[in-house]
Amino acid sequence: MTTRMLNIAMIGHGFMGRAHSNAFHQAGHFFDLPYTLRRKVICGRNQQAVAEMAARWGWDETANDWRAVVDRKDIDVIDIGTPNALHAEIAIAAAKAGKIIWCEKPLAMNGPQAAQMAEAAKKVPNLVWFNYRRVPAIALAKQLIDEGKIGQVYQYRAAYLQSWGADPARTGVWRFNKSDAGSGAMGDLLTHIVDLAHFLNGPLSELNALVHTFAPGREVDDAAIFTGRFANGGIGTFEVTRFAIGMKNRNRFEIHGSKGALSFNLEELNHLLYYDATLPADQQGWMDIMVTGPGHPYTANFWPAGHIIGYEHTFIATLADFLTALASGAEFHANFEDGLKVQQVMDAVEKSSETRNWVKL
Amino acid sequence: MTTRMLNIAMIGHGFMGRAHSNAFHQAGHFFDLPYTLRRKVICGRNQQAVAEMAARWGWDETANDWRAVVDRKDIDVIDIGTPNALHAEIAIAAAKAGKIIWCEKPLAMNGPQAAQMAEAAKKVPNLVWFNYRRVPAIALAKQLIDEGKIGQVYQYRAAYLQSWGADPARTGVWRFNKSDAGSGAMGDLLTHIVDLAHFLNGPLSELNALVHTFAPGREVDDAAIFTGRFANGGIGTFEVTRFAIGMKNRNRFEIHGSKGALSFNLEELNHLLYYDATLPADQQGWMDIMVTGPGHPYTANFWPAGHIIGYEHTFIATLADFLTALASGAEFHANFEDGLKVQQVMDAVEKSSETRNWVKL
Amino acid sequence: MTTRMLNIAMIGHGFMGRAHSNAFHQAGHFFDLPYTLRRKVICGRNQQAVAEMAARWGWDETANDWRAVVDRKDIDVIDIGTPNALHAEIAIAAAKAGKIIWCEKPLAMNGPQAAQMAEAAKKVPNLVWFNYRRVPAIALAKQLIDEGKIGQVYQYRAAYLQSWGADPARTGVWRFNKSDAGSGAMGDLLTHIVDLAHFLNGPLSELNALVHTFAPGREVDDAAIFTGRFANGGIGTFEVTRFAIGMKNRNRFEIHGSKGALSFNLEELNHLLYYDATLPADQQGWMDIMVTGPGHPYTANFWPAGHIIGYEHTFIATLADFLTALASGAEFHANFEDGLKVQQVMDAVEKSSETRNWVKL
Amino acid sequence: MTTRMLNIAMIGHGFMGRAHSNAFHQAGHFFDLPYTLRRKVICGRNQQAVAEMAARWGWDETANDWRAVVDRKDIDVIDIGTPNALHAEIAIAAAKAGKIIWCEKPLAMNGPQAAQMAEAAKKVPNLVWFNYRRVPAIALAKQLIDEGKIGQVYQYRAAYLQSWGADPARTGVWRFNKSDAGSGAMGDLLTHIVDLAHFLNGPLSELNALVHTFAPGREVDDAAIFTGRFANGGIGTFEVTRFAIGMKNRNRFEIHGSKGALSFNLEELNHLLYYDATLPADQQGWMDIMVTGPGHPYTANFWPAGHIIGYEHTFIATLADFLTALASGAEFHANFEDGLKVQQVMDAVEKSSETRNWVKL
Repeated sequence: MTTRMLNIAMIGHGFMGRAHSNAFHQAGHFFDLPYTLRRKVICGRNQQAVAEMAARWGWDETANDWRAVVDRKDIDVIDIGTPNALHAEIAIAAAKAGKIIWCEKPLAMNGPQAAQMAEAAKKVPNLVWFNYRRVPAIALAKQLIDEGKIGQVYQYRAAYLQSWGADPARTGVWRFNKSDAGSGAMGDLLTHIVDLAHFLNGPLSELNALVHTFAPGREVDDAAIFTGRFANGGIGTFEVTRFAIGMKNRNRFEIHGSKGALSFNLEELNHLLYYDATLPADQQGWMDIMVTGPGHPYTANFWPAGHIIGYEHTFIATLADFLTALASGAEFHANFEDGLKVQQVMDAVEKSSETRNWVKL
Repeated sequence: MTTRMLNIAMIGHGFMGRAHSNAFHQAGHFFDLPYTLRRKVICGRNQQAVAEMAARWGWDETANDWRAVVDRKDIDVIDIGTPNALHAEIAIAAAKAGKIIWCEKPLAMNGPQAAQMAEAAKKVPNLVWFNYRRVPAIALAKQLIDEGKIGQVYQYRAAYLQSWGADPARTGVWRFNKSDAGSGAMGDLLTHIVDLAHFLNGPLSELNALVHTFAPGREVDDAAIFTGRFANGGIGTFEVTRFAIGMKNRNRFEIHGSKGALSFNLEELNHLLYYDATLPADQQGWMDIMVTGPGHPYTANFWPAGHIIGYEHTFIATLADFLTALASGAEFHANFEDGLKVQQVMDAVEKSSETRNWVKL
Repeated sequence: MTTRMLNIAMIGHGFMGRAHSNAFHQAGHFFDLPYTLRRKVICGRNQQAVAEMAARWGWDETANDWRAVVDRKDIDVIDIGTPNALHAEIAIAAAKAGKIIWCEKPLAMNGPQAAQMAEAAKKVPNLVWFNYRRVPAIALAKQLIDEGKIGQVYQYRAAYLQSWGADPARTGVWRFNKSDAGSGAMGDLLTHIVDLAHFLNGPLSELNALVHTFAPGREVDDAAIFTGRFANGGIGTFEVTRFAIGMKNRNRFEIHGSKGALSFNLEELNHLLYYDATLPADQQGWMDIMVTGPGHPYTANFWPAGHIIGYEHTFIATLADFLTALASGAEFHANFEDGLKVQQVMDAVEKSSETRNWVKL
Repeated sequence: MTTRMLNIAMIGHGFMGRAHSNAFHQAGHFFDLPYTLRRKVICGRNQQAVAEMAARWGWDETANDWRAVVDRKDIDVIDIGTPNALHAEIAIAAAKAGKIIWCEKPLAMNGPQAAQMAEAAKKVPNLVWFNYRRVPAIALAKQLIDEGKIGQVYQYRAAYLQSWGADPARTGVWRFNKSDAGSGAMGDLLTHIVDLAHFLNGPLSELNALVHTFAPGREVDDAAIFTGRFANGGIGTFEVTRFAIGMKNRNRFEIHGSKGALSFNLEELNHLLYYDATLPADQQGWMDIMVTGPGHPYTANFWPAGHIIGYEHTFIATLADFLTALASGAEFHANFEDGLKVQQVMDAVEKSSETRNWVKL
């Protein structure tokens, strides 16, 4: 098999730049890819940091003007890992230039901006890095739900709890600046769990939110909570916070259906808890499935059963799925349309909190 | 020491009648009580069931007219374990008769009724069976909070999740009748976790609720969720449901403060999880305290360290504390005033859900 | 139904005296007993302690000469809860007097003594308080094993880990005196887990042991470990210790069979973990069965599903089963024959450790 | 900084070939290495498999004669990942050729062979892939032990439980052939946990073992258990098995000292449980430290706190430490001397099981 080369330009070089670079290296080691990936150019404002990053992660070139990069004919993919405020402009330019676009979440600063991006990206293959869809345990959860194993979903309970923002005096982080980040826990964390809810349980129909900032003077939200109704008749709660002392990265959900239930926690991402309520009553319980194979999504690509994977592998699996879909012409999710749907929920959350009213979706 | 005898009349003979009878038997075995308890009369409509109950649990007499029982001169205590709709009338009559009153939760069908009861009971010693305050792990949580161990509380997250109502076709249970129960998961479960929140974190200042019934035609709520603000500046979420497949009796909370955090689950009631954020960063973690002694509340009265107690012991410890307070003249909680405060929250939850608005408390 | 009265005399008034007294009170509350139990006389050397105990737990009389008690015509049952050294003499006298005998574990100081006791007790109903056989989760484990759910057992791994003896300077406890206790962790803890192994997996055929005392000058063992082979072809490890800092009462086992596995821990006695290896490979996992009903052994007698029981309930269920068997003439286990089998293993453990050789059983 | 290039030749291309190749790729991404690694040649008998492996993992060349590879002047490192039977011959040849040697465990087929290898390797830098020493949680355990946090160690309890061999009919795996593997669970699993015991608790002084094969006709052991004494006065149990249905990769230990205790399980490798027995009695418990930073060994090199790593990262950290030590001239462990010590324990285990006697070390 001869594989076409894809030249990647990555805009951004922080935490996500690292996670993406790693995926670009590793995807071909673990998956049979229909494309060869070339780490062509890494672009950012801080030239020294970009240079160090290029050296460490094997980028051919560095650049500091993303517009020039987008204009380059030899670039196939624009990967966007900048602060949120830049996503739209870069993505729209990239779309105009006919590039494949991979964009970090949150897709945009708000719904209308996301809509513009989704519109612009209609003609090009696109992806939003909602990488948690490809946690093997979450992919297994999706599979069990689609097979009807948990029946009609009554209740969906999601939370993404972190503590790194819990020092009210902490400043100097771009994620705390409204102009860069747009929002706080909402854009960073709530988008993840709303996308997972869309993936696992479908759209919300209305919600009622409380958005709160604990740290005096901080421009963005520290916590956001909402209660909602799903189109499928279920009800749900969503909570995100950077003030949950004791929680490092607890992205968790519990889903209760008529036939069973599921529970997941990102800090133990190699596990899915499954409750099968169709078993004899005396032999029911929460089954802790160690989702490392055999037979689980993605796991045959990594290590033998019982040998766990980590955070970074979710990016690798996402990338592999995208490339496979790209080669076959299949639809890929999460894409900009999915990112837009999440952004519309964010807007509703903001509006609900401001107006202190329920908001329809 | 000579101890005064207290003659008890118990109105009701269901699940709670059993839990109370057990406590009346056991309190003196485990605690040094300033009173001797006599199980004098058990009263209920179903004479055969009452007779069986009396025989099994050692009640001297049976009766079927609670009014006659309340009028008896030889009765010191009226213990109310009837369906909720009867609490007010019995309690008010008992108060008029000068009896000590012990009443199951929810105290009343609504706030105004609870206010009448609290007013009537001002002159007599009274108790509401919010037994979970005396789970040793919860008493330890209270102690740690009062000592300032977790600092200023930012977030309070409580849920009481059960599944026994999750069959939409199930009927024939008094807890599903509005006229008997007043409400569903709200009165049964939400009252418990709101009382615990009052105990551990103080009063709420406002809330926004969603009350929902899944089972077509069922008169009472199957689930209730609310988001709220506490007077101390914290925010909170509360959720109760009888539709949480997989959860048998999961009454849990997580409390995040500026210096630490606490986590509890009633299904593992011998444990309290404590996170001390003042330790060196590399030696922080959730500490699983097995709250069976040494040094933990109530545990010296039961079994040696590591020998767990069960659900029933919470009633025993509640009763022992009440009697000790009664003898010394100390204030006891949870009393009717506490029950009233919970009921006012219930009314706010109902109003919020109906009006789809935030309600101040 | 008229029920015959059984007059009980209890010799001993320590921790076990308390656990037994509680069971004598509670068995009739939770089970339909074919006998009425009367706490007739409690006997011990420390008259003040005995008197206090009698007052608290409702014993009609006190005594200080066990021989006189055994000779009383009005006594039906001799319940032995003394230090181990006295078990044999009391039990043999009680057997001669035709009494029903209930004896604490370890049954005896050694195998030959246990054999004498078992021989003497052949003509009377008898019980050894191996109460953990009646933990609902262990009874469920037995049931699953008997149904063939875990297939042929390959490996059996048991440990009973405590820490209360871990202060080498601690003295003044009868359990540390060889003349009173006979042994240390062996008699106290190893007997429990060997009896459970006999119950769940049948007899051992040979073993190799290490018995160790950490505390200088302490007369009894602090820890005992052995490796063994079972008659059914499986292999096993057993470990007991009073020096396991961090472990309060961790009596646990893991059993691996050809079709599944089981895991249990006494500190979480309301749970049994079950692994069903006959399920599809991608849907296998450790299932945490909350053994509180519906459908689990004993649980319908206690509280509704999800309302946990504690340590004391294991004595209650043991007593109820004994009385039911007594009324029907059915065989009851664990009896003195079972206690003898355990004692023979203890002797083999001691011999193996002393001779540093494998010992056949 | 200019860094010297190290040309690596890897002999073997199975599971370990994959794990090593990954480490060779990734070490420089996560650590500041004093050397640049070049994946020069991969060598194996199955030319097609080797070619595929080379293509996927970026090896410059392939070869099928390891002797020719060892003779090459341009090779700096020989990395041995072949079946165990070949380790000695390759390693000794590589040592003679002055190469740096990295060898998979078990180092050798037996102690004398290991001694020859250790002797031969004295003049060259060498490493045994006991990668679990670099699990961050285990490195933290070592650090806490060295700081005296758990005091004098009384008991050490280790097990490595797998189930992949539990089908007695399974054949056709080189790990089941005595001529290739030398032993079964012993070489594969027991070596790992004995090395960890040496690392964390020092040398054993004597042991008594049971080695067992369940599968009729299988040449190697399926399980091995031993009880031992440590030079530091503690006692220990070790168990490995491929017949532990329900266990995928449960490499775990519990260590009880006079001041505290530690517990670890490889399936949850991002966690260390720590019990501090010097805290107030009512605030003691097992603390679940999520060893993902801040301040934990290796974690700053990987991802932000709460973002877990997987199995493969242990090889990366091992390699980074080796290279750092190589550059500075510091001693590196685990080296061939460490591998020899483990092998001597293996020989003692075998001898003890065969002679049914204790064996001194």
